[in-house]
Amino acid sequence: MEFETMAGLKRTHMCGQLTAANQGETVTLTGWVARNRKLGGVNFVTLRDRTGIIQLAFNDQSDKKVFEKSEQLKSEYVIAAVGTVLLRTPENINPDMKTGEIEVFVSELRILNGAETPPFYIEENIDTNDALRLKYRYLDLRRPDMQRNMILRHKVAKLARDYFDEHGFLELETPMLTKSTPEGARDYLVPSRVHPGSFYALPQSPQLYKQLLMLAGYDRYFQIARCFRDEDLRADRQPEFTQLDMELSFTDIDTIIEINEGFLKKLFHDVLNLDIQTPFQRLPYAEAMERYGSDKPDTRFEMEFVNISDAVKNCGFKVFTQAIEQGGSVRCIVAKNLGDKMTRKTLDQLAEYVKTYRAKGMAWIVVEKDNLRSQITKFLSETEIQDILDATGAQPGDAILIIADKNNIVYDALGNLRLEVARRFDLIDKTKFNFLWVTDFPLLEFDEEENRYVAKHHPFTHPVDEDIPKLKTTPGEVRAKAYDIILNGTEIGGGSLRIFHTDLQEQMFEALGFSKEEAWERFGFLMEAFKYGTPPHGGLAYGLDRLVMLLAGCDSIRDVIPFPKVQTAAELMNGSPSPVDQKQLDELGIAVTVKPEKENEQK
Amino acid sequence: MEFETMAGLKRTHMCGQLTAANQGETVTLTGWVARNRKLGGVNFVTLRDRTGIIQLAFNDQSDKKVFEKSEQLKSEYVIAAVGTVLLRTPENINPDMKTGEIEVFVSELRILNGAETPPFYIEENIDTNDALRLKYRYLDLRRPDMQRNMILRHKVAKLARDYFDEHGFLELETPMLTKSTPEGARDYLVPSRVHPGSFYALPQSPQLYKQLLMLAGYDRYFQIARCFRDEDLRADRQPEFTQLDMELSFTDIDTIIEINEGFLKKLFHDVLNLDIQTPFQRLPYAEAMERYGSDKPDTRFEMEFVNISDAVKNCGFKVFTQAIEQGGSVRCIVAKNLGDKMTRKTLDQLAEYVKTYRAKGMAWIVVEKDNLRSQITKFLSETEIQDILDATGAQPGDAILIIADKNNIVYDALGNLRLEVARRFDLIDKTKFNFLWVTDFPLLEFDEEENRYVAKHHPFTHPVDEDIPKLKTTPGEVRAKAYDIILNGTEIGGGSLRIFHTDLQEQMFEALGFSKEEAWERFGFLMEAFKYGTPPHGGLAYGLDRLVMLLAGCDSIRDVIPFPKVQTAAELMNGSPSPVDQKQLDELGIAVTVKPEKENEQK
Repeated sequence: MEFETMAGLKRTHMCGQLTAANQGETVTLTGWVARNRKLGGVNFVTLRDRTGIIQLAFNDQSDKKVFEKSEQLKSEYVIAAVGTVLLRTPENINPDMKTGEIEVFVSELRILNGAETPPFYIEENIDTNDALRLKYRYLDLRRPDMQRNMILRHKVAKLARDYFDEHGFLELETPMLTKSTPEGARDYLVPSRVHPGSFYALPQSPQLYKQLLMLAGYDRYFQIARCFRDEDLRADRQPEFTQLDMELSFTDIDTIIEINEGFLKKLFHDVLNLDIQTPFQRLPYAEAMERYGSDKPDTRFEMEFVNISDAVKNCGFKVFTQAIEQGGSVRCIVAKNLGDKMTRKTLDQLAEYVKTYRAKGMAWIVVEKDNLRSQITKFLSETEIQDILDATGAQPGDAILIIADKNNIVYDALGNLRLEVARRFDLIDKTKFNFLWVTDFPLLEFDEEENRYVAKHHPFTHPVDEDIPKLKTTPGEVRAKAYDIILNGTEIGGGSLRIFHTDLQEQMFEALGFSKEEAWERFGFLMEAFKYGTPPHGGLAYGLDRLVMLLAGCDSIRDVIPFPKVQTAAELMNGSPSPVDQKQLDELGIAVTVKPEKENEQK
Repeated sequence: MEFETMAGLKRTHMCGQLTAANQGETVTLTGWVARNRKLGGVNFVTLRDRTGIIQLAFNDQSDKKVFEKSEQLKSEYVIAAVGTVLLRTPENINPDMKTGEIEVFVSELRILNGAETPPFYIEENIDTNDALRLKYRYLDLRRPDMQRNMILRHKVAKLARDYFDEHGFLELETPMLTKSTPEGARDYLVPSRVHPGSFYALPQSPQLYKQLLMLAGYDRYFQIARCFRDEDLRADRQPEFTQLDMELSFTDIDTIIEINEGFLKKLFHDVLNLDIQTPFQRLPYAEAMERYGSDKPDTRFEMEFVNISDAVKNCGFKVFTQAIEQGGSVRCIVAKNLGDKMTRKTLDQLAEYVKTYRAKGMAWIVVEKDNLRSQITKFLSETEIQDILDATGAQPGDAILIIADKNNIVYDALGNLRLEVARRFDLIDKTKFNFLWVTDFPLLEFDEEENRYVAKHHPFTHPVDEDIPKLKTTPGEVRAKAYDIILNGTEIGGGSLRIFHTDLQEQMFEALGFSKEEAWERFGFLMEAFKYGTPPHGGLAYGLDRLVMLLAGCDSIRDVIPFPKVQTAAELMNGSPSPVDQKQLDELGIAVTVKPEKENEQK
């Protein structure tokens, strides 16, 4: 097939921009053929570009050659068309189509490129297998819903840049080829050719560089930064992801929160036309755990925890009393008005569900009009039952779901049960956007595997001042000047004020079990830097992919990343990662020590 | 030393923002102590932040404790100060200081952090050794001139994003972990843990992805993108650098040029307050070589080439006639009014200089009032001499500098000689910003080492349509739809229209000496993609670092990159690249095959 060029033509409009107001104008359009239908001797060709679709018409009034050429057009052919905008007759108006009042009568048509039949339809919300979508990502990205997602992503990034620029933040680029600091997730490494045996690491975040920029006096920094973690991928993770990252000097937590509430308010207003209320609720970590068993509670529905340990501490039900005796607790949620729906089968399924979270089981009391339905009331006295009803405020029609165990298991199992009940019985108002700050996180948590404390956020987080002495005595009780921002039960960002004195940073590394030598070997350049006039500073980072995903109403961050990778960290389109030439390895002074998998196997 | 916090204080102004208009206001400032001088019982402390410096005053009116605390302040201490803005008495006004009309009488002072004496002064334009500056980059970046550079960089990036957004470009992120395609520069590789023996490559540019985005219908894309090339570093190269990258569909060269001239006009206006004239001159490659011997000519001065081959083709000077007989040429430049300065010593130095560019020597004729000074006129007839004078238009006082050789050596040597003469005799007007498009590049150039044609730009560049048949016959003569943008003799960007048909892309790889199988193995995903409706498209990319460097008036891109690397691709601050734990290598299934250098040696 011989193709034509656009020589002498220049596009005048995008397809989706035309309206009845353009009636009578001569326009030059370009794009992809969506459909070509013949109806009563007329060829109707729908033309698609990034902005939408428009109908082109060819009929017996058309130049014969143009008409004949229009008959050759197949789906996804690339064309340019010159024509006149005409109003459709009333019976032909298509109210479902943005440009449905008009069509373009074509006087000149050029076929710029042909197209083989695509492996799937270029339409919205197609049900195609993921691997095929990703192999032909360039076609998947041509679908209007994916285009909307990508355009949304551009808008979010642009709006963030405008907002933070207006608030005095400088976008400064930090290195991608940096130093491996094996504290945190696994690094991606890059062998050095000039220094054989040495490696760069790709950054897990710009954390240290942004702190150094504060030290260097830049006052307010932000960056939309690519970050890398070589972890086994869960559904919603990517080996490379994007952070909206910021850092401020001479700041307190309130200032950081205020600036970011302003950002989110503007974002939701400009992108979703939605007014969200600020300031957001702030919930200390301990309270979040007590009430929701989670440091990222979904507050679009209630069903908060009730601690009934006091009511049952002397009861005849060993599961309860033993949990309490071993330092644990007995807690429950009340499923309001769901008593009827809590059939034995459903209750058994929920009891099975909580085992995923290491709970040994779930007890339940369904409050009916005249009696209680329960497997445990036989172990309880009248008073104990009454105390439970008083504590929970449960009314006829309600169901009380109870977990007894060590506290961390109770939190986890009951917190997830709360979410499961909400999902199962459709208690979540999907139109709500509930924002929440969780504050006062523990600074450290004990890692059983490593048998030492590890940083809950990262080792640069500032302890709450009054807790600093506990670093040496009871490190598990030290609170951090850290905060996460939660939207509808998803953590969309987090941050902290940072340590900015060398001696406190040394104490922190000591609490993490590093010898002074180890600490200086790994992070010496930072602790050295702290000596030369470091301002108090702190910051925050959003997971941009996840934020855009929530704004777009998607279920996976894959749908808001142009070229994502699959669970095995492979890209199906170009087949990376892939074997390389021996010469490349020789130059780097490295060798592959394992037998390579067969190419593309399991990817 | 015990430090204080900012509890209860909130900064009201940045130091450089205050003016006489703030007289009488109570302000809270933060920053670094630049100097602390005692004069007649008054302590004058200059406080510095990103916006500038201001003088704080402490005297016998001060609270005694505040005064005593002010005596402790040393350079680079971090402080917060509350005080009143006062006008200085006329004799104390400092006209060299932006805030020189005022000072702040301090009522409350907090020392937030101390500072050891920095290894160099935190002042403008200090003369410190580069290695020290880079090791303590966070202090180097605190110097006001470096801060101006970084702020300028932020402004340039912001302005680019605003401009291209307004012109319908979407900023879309392309992957950093991508596929190694060994055509072009050397890739940085990233070993895959999940697929042992396989590697990702860091992108040399987003070239293929941006083309796929055009295929996917995004119409106009741009990105400020990090790129990587593992090449031996020259003075002005970095292993990671930043491109301002764009791509357009359904475009011609004129549209791309027009959009970019608009961008540069706005950039120079908004950043330097300078009006540059558009449209810029366009010069075909062949003409640029004929006139300047360079595809990036500096047109701020003239001294264009004159071809005097015809005049000397039969002369008695063997060097000239042999060059012409062997297909070369004899060309010269005229150094106007520099005859007097062309002493024998200078001429010998210039003759030595051209040898760097493989010229065997330089001939010269200095036109004096009554005679010619030259080492070669004795070999020339009167007519030949007159023909040279006529061709060059040389007048008494001028010097004619001549190179005879193969054409590519003449171009290179004489082109560089032209620049050297201009530098040496200060012929360049440094206030000029001369922009220039060079067009119609050769598509291919012959690589002697590889004994095959290689792409002058890259293998995706579209040939000029009428030259396509020559791809099979005389590939060296095929011109490309490529263009570079030159500023004052520096290439600041370049681009091309791209191939968008599978068969032409196959022909191109064939011309590069790839078998069909090799081409499909490496770039199959792209050629497969081309089958599904690829629009005509093209684009351009700027070297952002270099552009900012020229705008900032710096000599090195290091001065506009926050954390650059040195010539050995090492970062002196954190010591990367560095050895990693054996466990990390084992997980990746690789081993180091060379004896590692001693750590930090030669970095």
